[in-house]
Amino acid sequence: MRFLSDNTASVSPEILAALAAVNHGRVNPYGDDEWSARLDRAFSDFFGTEVRAFAVATGTAANALSLAVLCPPYGAIFAHQEAHLETDECGAPGFFTGGGQLTLLPGEHGRIAPETFSATLAAYPNHLHIVQPAVLSLSQATECGTAYRAESIAALAASAHGRGLKVHMDGARFANVVAFLGCHPGDITWRAGVDVLSFGATKNGAMGVEAVVFFRPELVRDFELHRKRTAHLHSKSRYLAAQLLAYLEGDLWKRNAARANGFAQRIARAAGTALLHPVEANEVFVRLGAERIRALRAAGFEFYDWGPPEAGEARLVVSWDQPEEEVRALERALTA
Amino acid sequence: MRFLSDNTASVSPEILAALAAVNHGRVNPYGDDEWSARLDRAFSDFFGTEVRAFAVATGTAANALSLAVLCPPYGAIFAHQEAHLETDECGAPGFFTGGGQLTLLPGEHGRIAPETFSATLAAYPNHLHIVQPAVLSLSQATECGTAYRAESIAALAASAHGRGLKVHMDGARFANVVAFLGCHPGDITWRAGVDVLSFGATKNGAMGVEAVVFFRPELVRDFELHRKRTAHLHSKSRYLAAQLLAYLEGDLWKRNAARANGFAQRIARAAGTALLHPVEANEVFVRLGAERIRALRAAGFEFYDWGPPEAGEARLVVSWDQPEEEVRALERALTA
Amino acid sequence: MRFLSDNTASVSPEILAALAAVNHGRVNPYGDDEWSARLDRAFSDFFGTEVRAFAVATGTAANALSLAVLCPPYGAIFAHQEAHLETDECGAPGFFTGGGQLTLLPGEHGRIAPETFSATLAAYPNHLHIVQPAVLSLSQATECGTAYRAESIAALAASAHGRGLKVHMDGARFANVVAFLGCHPGDITWRAGVDVLSFGATKNGAMGVEAVVFFRPELVRDFELHRKRTAHLHSKSRYLAAQLLAYLEGDLWKRNAARANGFAQRIARAAGTALLHPVEANEVFVRLGAERIRALRAAGFEFYDWGPPEAGEARLVVSWDQPEEEVRALERALTA
Amino acid sequence: MRFLSDNTASVSPEILAALAAVNHGRVNPYGDDEWSARLDRAFSDFFGTEVRAFAVATGTAANALSLAVLCPPYGAIFAHQEAHLETDECGAPGFFTGGGQLTLLPGEHGRIAPETFSATLAAYPNHLHIVQPAVLSLSQATECGTAYRAESIAALAASAHGRGLKVHMDGARFANVVAFLGCHPGDITWRAGVDVLSFGATKNGAMGVEAVVFFRPELVRDFELHRKRTAHLHSKSRYLAAQLLAYLEGDLWKRNAARANGFAQRIARAAGTALLHPVEANEVFVRLGAERIRALRAAGFEFYDWGPPEAGEARLVVSWDQPEEEVRALERALTA
Repeated sequence: MRFLSDNTASVSPEILAALAAVNHGRVNPYGDDEWSARLDRAFSDFFGTEVRAFAVATGTAANALSLAVLCPPYGAIFAHQEAHLETDECGAPGFFTGGGQLTLLPGEHGRIAPETFSATLAAYPNHLHIVQPAVLSLSQATECGTAYRAESIAALAASAHGRGLKVHMDGARFANVVAFLGCHPGDITWRAGVDVLSFGATKNGAMGVEAVVFFRPELVRDFELHRKRTAHLHSKSRYLAAQLLAYLEGDLWKRNAARANGFAQRIARAAGTALLHPVEANEVFVRLGAERIRALRAAGFEFYDWGPPEAGEARLVVSWDQPEEEVRALERALTA
Repeated sequence: MRFLSDNTASVSPEILAALAAVNHGRVNPYGDDEWSARLDRAFSDFFGTEVRAFAVATGTAANALSLAVLCPPYGAIFAHQEAHLETDECGAPGFFTGGGQLTLLPGEHGRIAPETFSATLAAYPNHLHIVQPAVLSLSQATECGTAYRAESIAALAASAHGRGLKVHMDGARFANVVAFLGCHPGDITWRAGVDVLSFGATKNGAMGVEAVVFFRPELVRDFELHRKRTAHLHSKSRYLAAQLLAYLEGDLWKRNAARANGFAQRIARAAGTALLHPVEANEVFVRLGAERIRALRAAGFEFYDWGPPEAGEARLVVSWDQPEEEVRALERALTA
Repeated sequence: MRFLSDNTASVSPEILAALAAVNHGRVNPYGDDEWSARLDRAFSDFFGTEVRAFAVATGTAANALSLAVLCPPYGAIFAHQEAHLETDECGAPGFFTGGGQLTLLPGEHGRIAPETFSATLAAYPNHLHIVQPAVLSLSQATECGTAYRAESIAALAASAHGRGLKVHMDGARFANVVAFLGCHPGDITWRAGVDVLSFGATKNGAMGVEAVVFFRPELVRDFELHRKRTAHLHSKSRYLAAQLLAYLEGDLWKRNAARANGFAQRIARAAGTALLHPVEANEVFVRLGAERIRALRAAGFEFYDWGPPEAGEARLVVSWDQPEEEVRALERALTA
Repeated sequence: MRFLSDNTASVSPEILAALAAVNHGRVNPYGDDEWSARLDRAFSDFFGTEVRAFAVATGTAANALSLAVLCPPYGAIFAHQEAHLETDECGAPGFFTGGGQLTLLPGEHGRIAPETFSATLAAYPNHLHIVQPAVLSLSQATECGTAYRAESIAALAASAHGRGLKVHMDGARFANVVAFLGCHPGDITWRAGVDVLSFGATKNGAMGVEAVVFFRPELVRDFELHRKRTAHLHSKSRYLAAQLLAYLEGDLWKRNAARANGFAQRIARAAGTALLHPVEANEVFVRLGAERIRALRAAGFEFYDWGPPEAGEARLVVSWDQPEEEVRALERALTA
């Protein structure tokens, strides 16, 4: 019973079917196919504003390519100290930007507080001896499984824009947040000041595809050249685009996310006071103590320690395709 | 009737079936799945020697990541002046190596002659004011659709190794060459001195996967860190590995390549004296004159000019799934 | 009366004389001159062990080039959060290493405590999804004007070496520390486990030269290629080497440092309880309150606020050539 | 008797005097000194138009930093195949631009013919799979010691600007060309379309300083950030600026250049039919045969072979401070 990560999940049948459906004929490559051509329209409809959307195959690529167009080689990228950019991309942000440097901020439950960020900016030296503030990157959901509300994002974005920074959102679990908040996708993105979004699909049922969504078309600039030179332009591009189209179509994204979220809520209830963070997506963080953790593992549950083993903390991630009986078993184990 | 490129091709049914076959359960990500674990064995068997093999999703990634481990940031990479590294990767080799610089060599029919290379090395300055010779990269098949024979590769590799360079092979159409030469895959790789191979599968029936194959395990070094930091480590890695395994299994690679090669030979015979290069894979280069080229296009054939339009030269690429009637139509058009 | 920084200082007459003394004849460039050839010997004698020493023109170059040979593009560089690497090099460490990322540590009085560092290393994730621990960089003197003792360095270096990291020392004010501690230069470098030192001279009387000193010759590796490709190999190299030789000769380094240190101690005594950090080099940090700071400035003293103006803190740096009357005036102003 | 290179030369007494003259007081660092502040004015007067001018310490830094602001990481830099950028900078152009790639052009006597360049641009692919044309860099004097005339530069610049490229000039021996042509410095720079100039001084009498001169102020953009992050911003900046001011003052640049040029003309006349290239600066290229080259060396002359030793070709460079008796001796040896 694996609660290791939602990237252990399988691929939604709808996605597999979409791959089969486009598998005919000799089709123009490198984004010059009819499915890729539909991405801008599909995402514009989804977000309720005119956007540009580009497919890439990995989440790190989506993040790092977003930064490549937003951050100069001497730029500072502000992010939460537990952000994926810092902890799980092996330096990709610095590499793709040609030198951009992460500036890490603390924040409860994985969120950067608007006051923290504005104070940081205010105190930031104003000379050319230090990397220059360029981007604020917010994770949605955060690495603690929590969600930024629209007002927080707007406050953070206002600070950022006020000093000329751009706002990036790492939306690896974006669908889970929209499903949780019950908001419109535009509410927590462009309406709140987000400039570029890494729109995740892989964790939530796709095989391997994310979209980089530009809410301000003029920011696209040389994105396509960066995508090519980083080897992230796929020749058989139809097979990426088709996944994204199927993901949006018929609200597959929402059904998958809602299912995982619902299970996460059940687990959260079972965990009770052991919860470390509010559960606002499909991840549950618990402090159980080393002994109960051992017991859970002995009972066949797989998951990661969060922090050092002796802390007795764990992260439990629910996948879109998690069998309900595994969730039920986990509920039982947690309430036992 | 598209003869634009083999990357317009669809995906082999066997590959799609393999994707569906692994689509169950929650499986460890990032290469820690059972299918990825089989790659070393499968490729070792294929090449007849112990190798290390890693899956990536694009050909440019395979090339650039190979170079990332073989070439220091102040290294020179020797390649043919028409090599994909130079003409179609938007600077990826320089980017992935942190500064490696291409040094381009001429050569008839897309091949670097061993004498050209050894003379270039002999004349290369021996001081630290210039980028240092680091890698020889050979395209197999070449950009002119020709094949290097084992003896040429061995001679080139001997020169390279003699001065401490490593030998990389860009095998985007490797299967077509093996099928054409009727040799063992080892004959034109490790037995001839190739150190690292970009083993192509995408053009020849896969959806989007290539293998980086190390014939000398000690060269793997930090490859996995480079793959991660360039955002080319896929989370749902089973879907890459499964493609490669299916590609090797039951000689799918050879059947697909042989079919395309066979069609290319028929087109070559039809082209007759218009041929610009020997046809040794699945590409046919012809000098037809601007008028016949217009006529071909008017008749519904799609293909790229080779060189400036006024040169009247064209590249015709046969895909593994090219309908025979399209080939027949092209034969007729060329012999008309 | 400028106490802004020791890089406002003039050049020692001995250094100017040395430049004039080598100014004859046509001399081999690029380090192939007789003065550059003497650097290894001169620094080996200075440190009491066999070293390799290379001249560069700026402190940032010395630091960033040291890191370029010690840190891979996916490496983590541990440094104090106020280190020059972070606050005053505009991303040079990331740039010269091709992607190395700073990991910042807190620490009282500008020093990293051995326990902080060993705990950080122990908790550092052990997988390839994050930048890999590569270098520990210590500033000597620290950015707070304090000195690491030999035992602390040894403890820090032991932790670093135990996990395969290299130890770099940013010795922009190295001479001031040696003069303060009264130790042998080897005591706080190679004997304590430092692998590579940025040996500063510019702030302490040179015109523009620092030495990169390798205590383990095998680490030199491709340093000279990095120096060239970063444009830091000077053609008329004799004029860099001559400065360094003059700086070491007759203990010019120690006389200049001791003079500035002595003045700093006088200012420290005058500052009394306003001192923020122990004064162990030529910098004095004081908390005076905004009003006294204004008064000092009104009286003609120039210096930098330390932190935001409202904090009322200041940094006073004494240069090797500071006129004694300026120091006396400052003493009076502080004790008034 | 050294004719190896003009970077073997000593420093003009006027330059040394200027260094001594600014050596007093504690002066603001990092370009915030009064001498650096005069550079814009001094160079604007020199060129007869409003320019921005920045001091750096090496010629490679001047070139690579010029390119850093003119060329994106996916840019192509067109240069002559013997350009210093290619043969003597160990990849600095690619490094400073974050990936810019040199595209090399042939050309007689070290010059790129306008037709060659315009034909190259016309044939250059117009898609995003290849590095994008960004900069044309011209060496003045060329690596063959010849000079571009204003009309050629204008024709080349017109082609470049017509496709959106910027024009850089590597003027390591710029003074020698102006002295040779007897033109105004503006004639072969901004009036002919040059956007940015690496203005050399080191080879012609300075100790170690070059100016990066922007003829279009809007191109300066983030130059200062690039200079800082590449570690080329000197703290004691007055000592760089003072050299440049002294170099321009009283036409020191012209006297030094004219002296070297005059000697070169005498050597050229002595060489007669052995000359390989017109002598239009301070370099003389001769084909003497291996035997006469050996004889010259036996007679005490030092110089570099040009090409492989068996070609019997040599480069003789005259320095600004070359003793006349050495020139006379060389004349005699060549006419013997």
